[in-house]
Amino acid sequence: MTQRIYNFSAGPAVLPEPVLRRAQAAIWDLDGTGIGVMEHSHRGAAFEAVLARAEAAVRTLGGVPDDHDVLFLQGGASTQFFMIPMSWLSTDDTADYCDTGVWAQKAIAEARRFGVVHVACTGKPSGFAALPGPDEITWSRRPVYAHFTSNNTIYGTQWPTEPTPPDGAPLVCDASSDIFSRPIDVRRYGLIYAGAQKNLGPSGVTLVIVRKDLVERGRRDLPTMLQYRTFAADRSMYNTPPTFGIYVLAEVLAWIAEQGGLAALGERNARKAALLYDALDRSELFRAYAAPGSRSDMNVTFRARTEALEAQFVREATAAGLDGLKGHRLAGGMRASIYNAFPEAGVRALIDFMADFERRHR
Amino acid sequence: MTQRIYNFSAGPAVLPEPVLRRAQAAIWDLDGTGIGVMEHSHRGAAFEAVLARAEAAVRTLGGVPDDHDVLFLQGGASTQFFMIPMSWLSTDDTADYCDTGVWAQKAIAEARRFGVVHVACTGKPSGFAALPGPDEITWSRRPVYAHFTSNNTIYGTQWPTEPTPPDGAPLVCDASSDIFSRPIDVRRYGLIYAGAQKNLGPSGVTLVIVRKDLVERGRRDLPTMLQYRTFAADRSMYNTPPTFGIYVLAEVLAWIAEQGGLAALGERNARKAALLYDALDRSELFRAYAAPGSRSDMNVTFRARTEALEAQFVREATAAGLDGLKGHRLAGGMRASIYNAFPEAGVRALIDFMADFERRHR
Repeated sequence: MTQRIYNFSAGPAVLPEPVLRRAQAAIWDLDGTGIGVMEHSHRGAAFEAVLARAEAAVRTLGGVPDDHDVLFLQGGASTQFFMIPMSWLSTDDTADYCDTGVWAQKAIAEARRFGVVHVACTGKPSGFAALPGPDEITWSRRPVYAHFTSNNTIYGTQWPTEPTPPDGAPLVCDASSDIFSRPIDVRRYGLIYAGAQKNLGPSGVTLVIVRKDLVERGRRDLPTMLQYRTFAADRSMYNTPPTFGIYVLAEVLAWIAEQGGLAALGERNARKAALLYDALDRSELFRAYAAPGSRSDMNVTFRARTEALEAQFVREATAAGLDGLKGHRLAGGMRASIYNAFPEAGVRALIDFMADFERRHR
Repeated sequence: MTQRIYNFSAGPAVLPEPVLRRAQAAIWDLDGTGIGVMEHSHRGAAFEAVLARAEAAVRTLGGVPDDHDVLFLQGGASTQFFMIPMSWLSTDDTADYCDTGVWAQKAIAEARRFGVVHVACTGKPSGFAALPGPDEITWSRRPVYAHFTSNNTIYGTQWPTEPTPPDGAPLVCDASSDIFSRPIDVRRYGLIYAGAQKNLGPSGVTLVIVRKDLVERGRRDLPTMLQYRTFAADRSMYNTPPTFGIYVLAEVLAWIAEQGGLAALGERNARKAALLYDALDRSELFRAYAAPGSRSDMNVTFRARTEALEAQFVREATAAGLDGLKGHRLAGGMRASIYNAFPEAGVRALIDFMADFERRHR
C-alpha cells in the first residue's frame, strides 16, 4: 500500500479513507453478490438497495421533509444552472440571483436565456472577498425564485446562514461546495443542488433536493430528461443512473452518520477552519483573502507578501506532500480546500509548514 | 477474495477483471501520486493524463479521423435522444429514423419535440425480431440526418452493417450496446453515441464521436451545457467531467487493445454468440427470438416452450451462478448479454446448463 498525501484539491476532492476501502471491495463484489458494484443492473435488487440507502441517508442526515424529493442527476451544477430557469422562469418573469462570484455568474448567464434576472446583491465591490449583509440585498417585487451560492470555492466565502427571500419566493441554492458540511434547514429551501465531488462523493452525480409542488409546476413541454418530474416519478431511475457514484455517495453519507451527523461534522469543520484562519491572522507573511464574517469553512483562501513567495510556497508545499494548494487565478495566491473528509492532521501539517516557511522568509 | 459469478446483465454489465483490479488500486492511489483517482482535481496533470489516454485509445481503436471530435458527456443515451434534434433539427426540417424497437422509439419521441420525424423503416411487423433489409428502408427526400440503433438490447437484434443514408445526410447512430465490439468505419458516421455501461465502462459516461463540421453547425442559442461545441472546445472539460468513469473507460480500452483490438474482439464476440445460437437452433426446448440475419452478438434473446418453464429456467440458472438471464418483459423469456468482457467460459457454462435443463424437461 502506497503512502497517501494531504490533498487540498478544491474538487474533485479527498474522500474518507474507510469509504475508499469499502469501494475497493465493492468493485470486485458488492455485498456478497459475486458481482461488482459497477457491473450490477440498475434494475436489480442489489443496486435498488444501494439507491434506497443513499436516499434514506440524505433524508435522515439532512432532515429532508416528505414534501421534498431527493434526486440523483447527472451533469453537475452546470446542468442545474440551466435546468432551473428552463423549468420555472418564463420570458416575462423575474428571478433573483445573488452575485457572489464566478459560479453565481454562470448561473445568472444561463438564467438570462429564459427570463429576466434581477441581481439582488453583488460582492463585486470587495473583489468577492465579502458576502453581502442582509441590508445589502434588494429583492425584486415578485421573483419566481431567489438563487444564491452557499459557498464560493474560488474566493473562499460562505454564507453564515441562508438569505431570507421575499414572501412566497422559493429559495434556490447551489450548495455544491458545502452541502452536508454543517446542519441545514431544508424546509427553508425550494431547491438545493450540489455536484457530489466536494463533500459527497465522486464527480458525475448531482444531488437535488426539491419541493414536490415545484416539481409539479415545472414546464411540461421540455425534453423528458430536462424535466425534474421524470426523475421524481422514477426515483432517479428513468434511465441508467450513475450507479457507482451513487454507491460511493451512500458510503460517504454512512461515514458522515458514523462521525455523528451534520452537527458534529459542522463543529469539526469550523474547528479545522478556525485553526487555519487563526494562523493566517497571526502571520506577518500570510493573510486570509476572505473578509471576517464571510470566511468559508470549506475553502480557505490566502495570499503571501509577494507572488514570487506564493509560487515558491506552493512548490515547496507540494514537494512536502501538501498537494493542491495553488489558488484559483481569479483570487490568486493559495487555497486550502478542507472539506468534510479532510483530516485535522492535514490542517495542522499545513500550519506547521506555513510557520516553517515564514521563519525562513521573515 | 469472494467468488465472482457469471453476470449476463444487459447493462450495467460485466467488466474485464484486470480492469477491476487496476481500478481497485487506483481508488487508493492513482499512478503513484498518493491520491486516489476519484480525488484528483480534473484540472491536474494526473487526470489530464487519464483523459488523454482515453481519447487516444478511442481514436486508435476506432480509427477515428481528425475531422471527428471525441467527447465524454453525461446523461446517457437518453440525453443524446434530445440533444441531437435540439442541435440540428428545426421545426420545418425532417430527420429520418429507423424504428427497430423501444430505444429507437424513445429517440423518435424526443426528436418529434423539435421537428418532423420520418420513420424510414420499422421492425414492427416481426415484433422487432427482424431488422429491415436494405430494400425495406425508405428515406425521405432531404433528411437533416438519418438515425439508427445499431444493436437493440431488448429484442436482441443487431444491424449486420450500417444502413446507407441518402446523399449528404449524416448518419447518426445509437451504438450504446455494441460500440467497439467489432470494427467500425467511423468515416461513414456523422455522430455516434454510446452510454458506456455495456462495453466501455460504468454508467455515467457517454462517449460521443461527432464530425467537427456538424458541431460547428449546431444551434448556438442553447444552454451552454446542451451545445456540443462547449465540450469540443474544452476537451470535455468545460465543467467537471465524470473523472472515475473516464478512468475506467480508459482502462477498458487499454484492455481491448491488449486483446488485439476491435477485429480480434469482433471475432471473439461472433464466436461466443455463434456457440449460443447453435445450441438454441439445435434445441427442442429453447428457440432464439431474433431472426437469422438480424441476430445480435451482444444480446442473445431466447424463449422456452412455456412461460412456466422460462421462469423455472431463470430461477435455477440464477441459483447455479448464471445471473441476469431474465429477458425484458417486451420480448419475454430469456436474454444472455455477452458483451466484450463476458468470458467464453460463461457462454459454455450457460450452454451446458441449458442442455442439462432440457434433459430434465424433455
